[in-house]
Amino acid sequence: MKCRMCHGRAVIKLPAHNLNLCENCFVTFLQRRVRRTIGSLRLLSPGEKVLVAVSGGKDSLSLWDLLLELGYQAEGLYIDLGIGEYSQKSEEKAVSFAQRKGARLHIQRVKDYFGGLAIPEIARRAKRTSCSVCGLVKRYLMNQSGRCFDVIATGHNLDDEVSFLLGNLLNWQTDALARQAPSLPDRESLRRKVKPLVLCSEREMAAYALIRGIDYILDECPYSQGSTSLLYKSALNRLEQESPGTKLRFYQGFLKSRLAFVAKEEPELQPCENCGYLTTTQICSFCRLQQRVLERV
Amino acid sequence: MKCRMCHGRAVIKLPAHNLNLCENCFVTFLQRRVRRTIGSLRLLSPGEKVLVAVSGGKDSLSLWDLLLELGYQAEGLYIDLGIGEYSQKSEEKAVSFAQRKGARLHIQRVKDYFGGLAIPEIARRAKRTSCSVCGLVKRYLMNQSGRCFDVIATGHNLDDEVSFLLGNLLNWQTDALARQAPSLPDRESLRRKVKPLVLCSEREMAAYALIRGIDYILDECPYSQGSTSLLYKSALNRLEQESPGTKLRFYQGFLKSRLAFVAKEEPELQPCENCGYLTTTQICSFCRLQQRVLERV
Repeated sequence: MKCRMCHGRAVIKLPAHNLNLCENCFVTFLQRRVRRTIGSLRLLSPGEKVLVAVSGGKDSLSLWDLLLELGYQAEGLYIDLGIGEYSQKSEEKAVSFAQRKGARLHIQRVKDYFGGLAIPEIARRAKRTSCSVCGLVKRYLMNQSGRCFDVIATGHNLDDEVSFLLGNLLNWQTDALARQAPSLPDRESLRRKVKPLVLCSEREMAAYALIRGIDYILDECPYSQGSTSLLYKSALNRLEQESPGTKLRFYQGFLKSRLAFVAKEEPELQPCENCGYLTTTQICSFCRLQQRVLERV
Repeated sequence: MKCRMCHGRAVIKLPAHNLNLCENCFVTFLQRRVRRTIGSLRLLSPGEKVLVAVSGGKDSLSLWDLLLELGYQAEGLYIDLGIGEYSQKSEEKAVSFAQRKGARLHIQRVKDYFGGLAIPEIARRAKRTSCSVCGLVKRYLMNQSGRCFDVIATGHNLDDEVSFLLGNLLNWQTDALARQAPSLPDRESLRRKVKPLVLCSEREMAAYALIRGIDYILDECPYSQGSTSLLYKSALNRLEQESPGTKLRFYQGFLKSRLAFVAKEEPELQPCENCGYLTTTQICSFCRLQQRVLERV
């Protein structure tokens, strides 16, 4: 198997692109792909200060690596969710990556906001699922840490996006479909959010991390077990296997057809009376969660 | 396991409806479901003369049975494709069902239009796939036989529809999405076409045929092996198994959101100069196929 670019020995097959590549050429290919994604979807402008949300996993660390390699001024944000050994290991990976690259990593700890409690306990007290509480808290802390940056970048890859997309289509969540985009605009204190990896598959990101020697956490969050998103991913993997390129076609076709889905009008936002975060209610959902959980400590 | 309707012994579990039923109550349930589908989607009006396209399989024979039971004046049309033993067996099933019900069955034979040739040979000569030739020929012969009827009914079930839908969405075939409907209107000599089984799953239709003692052909068409529609069905079955009701939700959500997809303007139709069938070209695709194939006989 020969590398299509340099004719050396290929180590990775990319059936979706009908391409076999060696290690070096694959890295070039992926960096070019991300640079082009950023350009064609207008995700970042040169000189913008980017905060990369890193979980310690392959996607977010590779994204950070890619943005640094592409010359962006990119700092990292790690949010410690307090999910036992999983969170400890994740943090170690994020910290050691930052040290190796000489890049700055900001750390936010959920327990600092919830009287020492971590996500699982917060969820129990709030009588909500861990995943819904985790999403709410991460969004809030990301926006808070993003204040001094132009834009927040997350490591959502093609597999994540097509899995959301399939779920949103199976349930015809037309509002969610209208909002599902590789770039969400600024809204006053809420930072712009971008996903530069939307055209890179999970498998490609794993290969990139491996070849670049990025040490990442292999475990999935213990709360993601049995989630519908994993189910959708496995259904889409089956289709991709039979017909390579299915995921890319599905996502790119969606980007073109997206305008068919019109969101209900965006509700008016106002600052939370407690913390100033933009919200549709008097007190934002983060502060309400905080109050509810802390009352019971 | 008790029947929810009569409290007798249930024999079928319908997780999508959270319902267990005995044989008799299941038949009542399915007949009511089809009657309601016909009513709510305005598929048929009382007294209309219906031509049911029957393949000899469970869906189309059960549809015929259901329409007769619901009091419609329904005759059958069997199209002999000439696919060896598969076609012979299918025809026997259709004929014996018609005899048992005392209903009238019309038979069209592809070979009568193509100098004795059957679908596989026609496809070879036309250098097209069997499935594309078969679709073209069946549509034509259905419309031809439908001239003396108000409407043509086909046995497409929920699984067929969600499999089309998934395929159309994965490839963002927005034109096909705009046209995918349980009812296609009349266009002059082209008969209205309706699909009364769109809310009944393949499994429900198999159970109906079994309980009603309908003898149908179990084999699938040999040319359908490895088709993408079977692949999509298997992916959707997996999702349905994990989350019963997924297919129904997906299809009903689509019916509500369908207006988001706007077809390109319908092209002007004119009668084929050779046979009078409505077409966008001078000579319709059926007559062109005929000419091409017969030239080579």
